Amino acid sequence: MDLLGQYRCLMEQYLKTLKEDPKSRLSVLEKEYDEFRARGLKLDMSRGKPCKEQLDLSVEMLAYPYKDKNFKTDSCADVRNYGMVDGLPEAKELFAKMLEVGTNEIILGNNSSLSMMYDTISRAMTFGLYGSPEPWCRLPKVKFLCPSPGYDRHFAICELFNIEMITIDLKDDGPDMDTVEKLAAEDDSIKGMWCTPKYSNPTGITYSDEVVDRLAAMSTAAKDFRIFWDNAYAVHHLTDRPDRLKNILEACKKAGNPDRVFIFASTSKITFPGSGVAMMAASENNISLIKKQLGIRTICPDKINQLRHLLFFRDIDGIERHMKKHAAILKPKFDMVIGILESRLGGKNIASWSKPNGGYFISFDTLPGCASAVVKMAGEAGVVFTPAGATYPYHKDPQDRNIRIAPTLPPADELRTAMELLCICTEIVSIRKLLA
Amino acid sequence: MDLLGQYRCLMEQYLKTLKEDPKSRLSVLEKEYDEFRARGLKLDMSRGKPCKEQLDLSVEMLAYPYKDKNFKTDSCADVRNYGMVDGLPEAKELFAKMLEVGTNEIILGNNSSLSMMYDTISRAMTFGLYGSPEPWCRLPKVKFLCPSPGYDRHFAICELFNIEMITIDLKDDGPDMDTVEKLAAEDDSIKGMWCTPKYSNPTGITYSDEVVDRLAAMSTAAKDFRIFWDNAYAVHHLTDRPDRLKNILEACKKAGNPDRVFIFASTSKITFPGSGVAMMAASENNISLIKKQLGIRTICPDKINQLRHLLFFRDIDGIERHMKKHAAILKPKFDMVIGILESRLGGKNIASWSKPNGGYFISFDTLPGCASAVVKMAGEAGVVFTPAGATYPYHKDPQDRNIRIAPTLPPADELRTAMELLCICTEIVSIRKLLA
Repeated sequence: MDLLGQYRCLMEQYLKTLKEDPKSRLSVLEKEYDEFRARGLKLDMSRGKPCKEQLDLSVEMLAYPYKDKNFKTDSCADVRNYGMVDGLPEAKELFAKMLEVGTNEIILGNNSSLSMMYDTISRAMTFGLYGSPEPWCRLPKVKFLCPSPGYDRHFAICELFNIEMITIDLKDDGPDMDTVEKLAAEDDSIKGMWCTPKYSNPTGITYSDEVVDRLAAMSTAAKDFRIFWDNAYAVHHLTDRPDRLKNILEACKKAGNPDRVFIFASTSKITFPGSGVAMMAASENNISLIKKQLGIRTICPDKINQLRHLLFFRDIDGIERHMKKHAAILKPKFDMVIGILESRLGGKNIASWSKPNGGYFISFDTLPGCASAVVKMAGEAGVVFTPAGATYPYHKDPQDRNIRIAPTLPPADELRTAMELLCICTEIVSIRKLLA
Repeated sequence: MDLLGQYRCLMEQYLKTLKEDPKSRLSVLEKEYDEFRARGLKLDMSRGKPCKEQLDLSVEMLAYPYKDKNFKTDSCADVRNYGMVDGLPEAKELFAKMLEVGTNEIILGNNSSLSMMYDTISRAMTFGLYGSPEPWCRLPKVKFLCPSPGYDRHFAICELFNIEMITIDLKDDGPDMDTVEKLAAEDDSIKGMWCTPKYSNPTGITYSDEVVDRLAAMSTAAKDFRIFWDNAYAVHHLTDRPDRLKNILEACKKAGNPDRVFIFASTSKITFPGSGVAMMAASENNISLIKKQLGIRTICPDKINQLRHLLFFRDIDGIERHMKKHAAILKPKFDMVIGILESRLGGKNIASWSKPNGGYFISFDTLPGCASAVVKMAGEAGVVFTPAGATYPYHKDPQDRNIRIAPTLPPADELRTAMELLCICTEIVSIRKLLA
């Protein structure tokens, strides 16, 4: 069935559910909308920012290392001084455990994993990567596979570097691997692929073991093909039965492609956005080349901040205990969003949404062709959502369906208001489409 | 007179001063050297690192912002959260004063000004700069003017990006401007120039007003020619009568070339190396393009660390008071180095050295052709100096004369030992050359 056919079919189902005249339903909803609009709201639901209560969880970290004024570790004579381009060894050990890699397979940076991704692509363009036949900038065309919906900032990096993005359907167990394998095997200008493999931004899914294995083992026409594995939500669980993500570096080694993956993560949503510790992990071949290039760019990252994190968490259990406190703040927000969606839109066949076990987003799908109108309408009533399309390459959602909901930042009452408005707008836009 | 002639002439002067048989003087010195060597020294004089006492000056900064737990400023709702790609506005204001620029002419980064320089060159290569006809990577050749002796890490960036370096003689009032003007005017592949204009690394000189004006006003064949003005030692005085450096951004504006200069600085040697705040300043045209590109690379720098600096210093007077404490620690070390050089080598015509009013280095010149032998000999006795040649492009000191002395890190007794050894090695190598 084509899209229009699907759409008509869904609409008919909605009308059956409605059991009333769509025009009268519309006028009830429009009255509700006008009431919201009259309130002069000013709410921002657009970004995955932690809320104040989450930030307060890490304030005690700022007491370190001032508290005991010890700036020496077993492997560093004075963390305050220059040196150690790949980070403080003891902090590397802690975060290597978090990413399940060896201490020779990790580099700690400053605060931003996004900038480590950007820099990796920038170096690939200018110098090439480990094993590259030549710098990517010398090639007539560089392409990336982009499972979507995905993270808008990944796509923005590609746009800036003029890397052509190929949209890949993201399913419940990961990217559509049949398509990925086919394209990667036949087109040597496909040099990389973006993945947010755990509690995916925005759909919340986690890649299955099978998908991880297929990514690790697939044939690639480009010898220097790389998976950019943005494990941003590695420990960001919302439930006591968290998703498990298979270790891709191990899988790549096992498949004979040890250099295929760059893993990225940070503590931006563990401690402080902007003042956390970013990190990347990869094979020793990759890491040793990066360290060499990094040594020209900087003398060292902020080791005091790395020590601060280390003293606060002590060990991996400390991180896990800390993340449970985040979950205690976030779970009720996610539950509220899903509760409102279910009570207002449940069974109406005009929208669907994710129920993630972790991460920062709820992904919301309208009927085809409705998402940008819904976001626009909500915006006109004072509630800003991430622009529709943002979760797709070139800001183009082929079906204009996906809206990313970021429930973490707003206080509960604001979140309730914003979600009620979103539901009203969704229903209004759907009925108007039907009546048009 | 050619180099060899000069060398013979200096040697003869030395012999006259010596008033004894050079062979017997040599054997006295060699005995001294052997005694040093027998001590099994392990001293590192190679890098411009602050010493422990200097680092202790800023420990109280680490109490902030934990101390009063206020994370709000007039212009930022919560410094702990994401946002403000160019830094915390109140901190920008403070550092804009330090660099004598407007608050719209500055960007605060993370800890490393070196990485801001590297990133600027990287963006120039890949995207071009404000006003660039095309990205530099598209050009058959890119060249930089490199006043030398200079900072080895600047030169390393050029080497990595395959930028050809042209060595320019650094005189007591700045680079040899006749040569600079001639080359910049005639060769459009010359895209930039490195400068450490104040308390220059390593010679300690400060550019004269005339040099600043000529740099600002000169004709350049490249439309997007840039001066990389590494004002690393802007407030790092050793005396109460500090050098004054003319404001180059103002001079460039006045000369009708407002976009010509990128100014860089950091607090690495004000507070903590590796945990300071780096910054760059330039015209609003430059800054607004950089901010746009920067917004793709990262969401924001570490604003908590910027607030930490702000709360510690309060204002520019706070920075100046703090720098006096550094000077009180460093001045005796610089005095000791110069004292030892004068007592051991003064009047002998085999070496000369700088007596800087600020900065981190003393520049030491041997007779032509002796520097690498001196550094090697000192190294064999356990004292590491910056490799001879490091202060020149491609590590090639055309006269093999310059040695960079970094007196800041070692405790006084170690510094004395290292300097005595350097003097002995210098005299031994000189006499051996003469007798060869």
